[in-house]
Amino acid sequence: MSKGLDHETLNENVKKVQYAVRGELYLRASELQKEGKKIIFTNVGNPHALGQKPLTFPRQVVALCQAPFLLDDPNVGLVFPADAIARAKHYLSLTSGGLGAYSDSRGLPGVRKEVAEFIERRDGYPSDPELIFLTDGASKGVMQILNSIIRGSSDGILVPVPQYPLYSAAISLYGGSLVPYYLEETANWGLDIKNLRQSVVQARSNGITCLSEANLKELLQFCYQENVVLMADEVYQQNIYQDERPFLSARKVLLDMGLPMSKEVQLVSFHTVSKGYWGECGQRGGYFEMTNIPPQTVDEIYKVASISLSPNVPGQIFLGLMVNPPKPGDISYLKFVQEGKSVLESLRRRAHIMTNGFNSCRNVVCNFTEGAMYSFPQIRLPPRAIEAAKKLGKVPDVFYCLKLLEATGISTVPGSGFGQKEGVFHLRTTILPAEEDMPAIMESFKKFNDEFMEQYEDHTGYSRM
Amino acid sequence: MSKGLDHETLNENVKKVQYAVRGELYLRASELQKEGKKIIFTNVGNPHALGQKPLTFPRQVVALCQAPFLLDDPNVGLVFPADAIARAKHYLSLTSGGLGAYSDSRGLPGVRKEVAEFIERRDGYPSDPELIFLTDGASKGVMQILNSIIRGSSDGILVPVPQYPLYSAAISLYGGSLVPYYLEETANWGLDIKNLRQSVVQARSNGITCLSEANLKELLQFCYQENVVLMADEVYQQNIYQDERPFLSARKVLLDMGLPMSKEVQLVSFHTVSKGYWGECGQRGGYFEMTNIPPQTVDEIYKVASISLSPNVPGQIFLGLMVNPPKPGDISYLKFVQEGKSVLESLRRRAHIMTNGFNSCRNVVCNFTEGAMYSFPQIRLPPRAIEAAKKLGKVPDVFYCLKLLEATGISTVPGSGFGQKEGVFHLRTTILPAEEDMPAIMESFKKFNDEFMEQYEDHTGYSRM
Ligand SMILES: Cc1ncc(COP(=O)(O)O)c(C=O)c1O
Ligand SMILES: Cc1ncc(COP(=O)(O)O)c(C=O)c1O
Repeated sequence: MSKGLDHETLNENVKKVQYAVRGELYLRASELQKEGKKIIFTNVGNPHALGQKPLTFPRQVVALCQAPFLLDDPNVGLVFPADAIARAKHYLSLTSGGLGAYSDSRGLPGVRKEVAEFIERRDGYPSDPELIFLTDGASKGVMQILNSIIRGSSDGILVPVPQYPLYSAAISLYGGSLVPYYLEETANWGLDIKNLRQSVVQARSNGITCLSEANLKELLQFCYQENVVLMADEVYQQNIYQDERPFLSARKVLLDMGLPMSKEVQLVSFHTVSKGYWGECGQRGGYFEMTNIPPQTVDEIYKVASISLSPNVPGQIFLGLMVNPPKPGDISYLKFVQEGKSVLESLRRRAHIMTNGFNSCRNVVCNFTEGAMYSFPQIRLPPRAIEAAKKLGKVPDVFYCLKLLEATGISTVPGSGFGQKEGVFHLRTTILPAEEDMPAIMESFKKFNDEFMEQYEDHTGYSRM
Repeated sequence: MSKGLDHETLNENVKKVQYAVRGELYLRASELQKEGKKIIFTNVGNPHALGQKPLTFPRQVVALCQAPFLLDDPNVGLVFPADAIARAKHYLSLTSGGLGAYSDSRGLPGVRKEVAEFIERRDGYPSDPELIFLTDGASKGVMQILNSIIRGSSDGILVPVPQYPLYSAAISLYGGSLVPYYLEETANWGLDIKNLRQSVVQARSNGITCLSEANLKELLQFCYQENVVLMADEVYQQNIYQDERPFLSARKVLLDMGLPMSKEVQLVSFHTVSKGYWGECGQRGGYFEMTNIPPQTVDEIYKVASISLSPNVPGQIFLGLMVNPPKPGDISYLKFVQEGKSVLESLRRRAHIMTNGFNSCRNVVCNFTEGAMYSFPQIRLPPRAIEAAKKLGKVPDVFYCLKLLEATGISTVPGSGFGQKEGVFHLRTTILPAEEDMPAIMESFKKFNDEFMEQYEDHTGYSRM
């Protein structure tokens, strides 16, 4: 007789979950690291793990909130600037009991108000703090919303492919059906609304890279006509590396479209302290904002959030600081702006180094990283490489990525973890390794790749097109 | 046509969730607070919100980890003691990227090792860090495990009643069936194994207060014979207010029982930084340890934990500090011990004040709080009070607690949120209000209660027994 936690008796949905970002490649990389090999983890967007320094001001504020007794220490002014001290007092005044008390399950009211003000400044439309919930990172928010929506396998969730695997994993966990639609690699991963419509038609009979404003409008129109909830994962709103298309929130575009759509389309928007020039992944701070969601539903979501009592409070303070950073004239303003700018400018340079590096490799074609923190080069695997992979029972891009890992220590994620069209292969890497290490990494990649291609190409020229 | 996030289309399991700790009483108390009324929140065990001061040493360590640049500041020694500085360096050396980097989804390996060492010192048996996962508070861990176990409504989870509502809420959310068994109020909420067996028999045909060692053995034997997984919620292991029965972990008792049981019973044990003399609820630090769980299951749990990437890292440091506190001879040792002792001694005194206070009230009978942070007095409601409640469509103890809230500002939770035998009523309050406020609170309670009883009793003496 099997027991409750034996593998065969587990919840089937748990077993079905696939999560490539921390899947076979990551596990093998962790093993190699234990054995003493130097690994470059580019599997997950984790800037501080690859050397990005934290911004000084927010860390000063949170350190003071953690140690409020310092505020009474006559020497505090020797190690902390006056504006950080003032800001720490401000956040402590928003809590009852400091960082050590559970907050309301939706987060501290004072911080939610700061988030609403940020959204209003950003989009030009008022935002209601009662419709903003703070979360332990955006991931937890996405999971809460999906858990509320999904009733069973006949509920389909449209997901752009390539996707962030949080979506496929959470949809499996909650027993829904993922309905993929493909983004256009040839249009720098833009949205082709025909692909989206086709996916819906198919799903009925038996989420997005750098979208243009026109793309977003089409998408919202589609949601309106097809009565689909839009979950807008906007965690990369500060990570834009071109100047032609600045960030536009789905909420702003929706509200700009006016009635009836602006009052009809149900929208949940997500943000985080993990990305941008902050990169504070380990702090787990995030929020979601609900637009056109009925109050009874908001109550249900509140109730379920209450089960785990409170998002972590230091993460809430980081979020407050992110939406309400130092202002011109503040003691810490110049330093803060300079630190942030230097992170973003370096990311932009790294996006170029990486794209160019990939495009200089045999059988590799790569779009420029217009935003976020990732590169997704297409790897044109020769038929003999595909055969070799199949013989080992491996998906071809997993085979390629494992060989890359063993040869170079570069830990990437196979494109198959994100979804790709049949017969087309990619890998996903972050643009986060330190800028000074980047040339060596790209060289090491090129050496591996070109040798790999040399080995597996049949020299009739077939896959050199 | 209804939309995805309209109330009628939500996941039914979400709607079914009941969570009394933040339910009707809490919502009404929040409203009253907004209107300016002074509310004493005793609905949830949240010590810092009621004035408990954080322990100094761990806050110093985490503040330094948040602001690692302070470690290079020549003035740091003026505001931080040397052992806090050394410990901050230690924890930073366990991360790659400090507090701002996602850790492994199971938590930092170095902290998990410290947890394993703590468990070994506590129980006298070795513990494997690979079977310890760090979590954002114990609640998140309990939810992860229940989500893995529950496949559908034919999976029953035995829960002692009165229960902590996390359990009923999570079981509803994941679609399982709660199978309650009653603890014996007359034996200070001890376990009567007959009640447990009876509940199982009933559930087959169509987790615990201050248990004695004998109780725990019976329970483990029961789990062995009936092939039931034991989830041991041991978050109150440091909160014991009598000296006869010190804390014994379920794991120690199981391993003491020897073969075959020690290798057979599947056990998951939970702990947190929210309770004890720490009370760091807002930091969200916790862990669970798995005993006799097959490796494939551990892998599945790891995979699902990976979906949300990483527990918050500052909370992990708090957990490390909790399991590995200052040692005799350390600069901060005496202060740390003194702070902790003063919290626990005050809690013990408050447990007495509260129990005695309740027992001095008309129609109120209350067991002594032997451990944890709660008091659960039985309120013998006169029949006329029950009728009055029913007329208003309220559960009788909800009616009583609402009146208590309106009259005194004391926010409690009705016993019905935790489960109680038919026709018996309780309320649940924490023993956490500041010690100096306690006499006034108990007086205000007594005044309300005795007037309430006076009002609703028919003066034939019926409910005075
Ligand atoms: C698209 C996207 N959404 C959400 C997240 C989750 O971020 P977090 O949970 O740290 O806020 C990530 C993380 O890499 C991401 O890439
Ligand atoms: C019995 C019990 N278990 C678990 C918890 C959850 O604690 P946390 O999630 O803060 O670790 C609580 C909180 O009050 C509790 O009373």
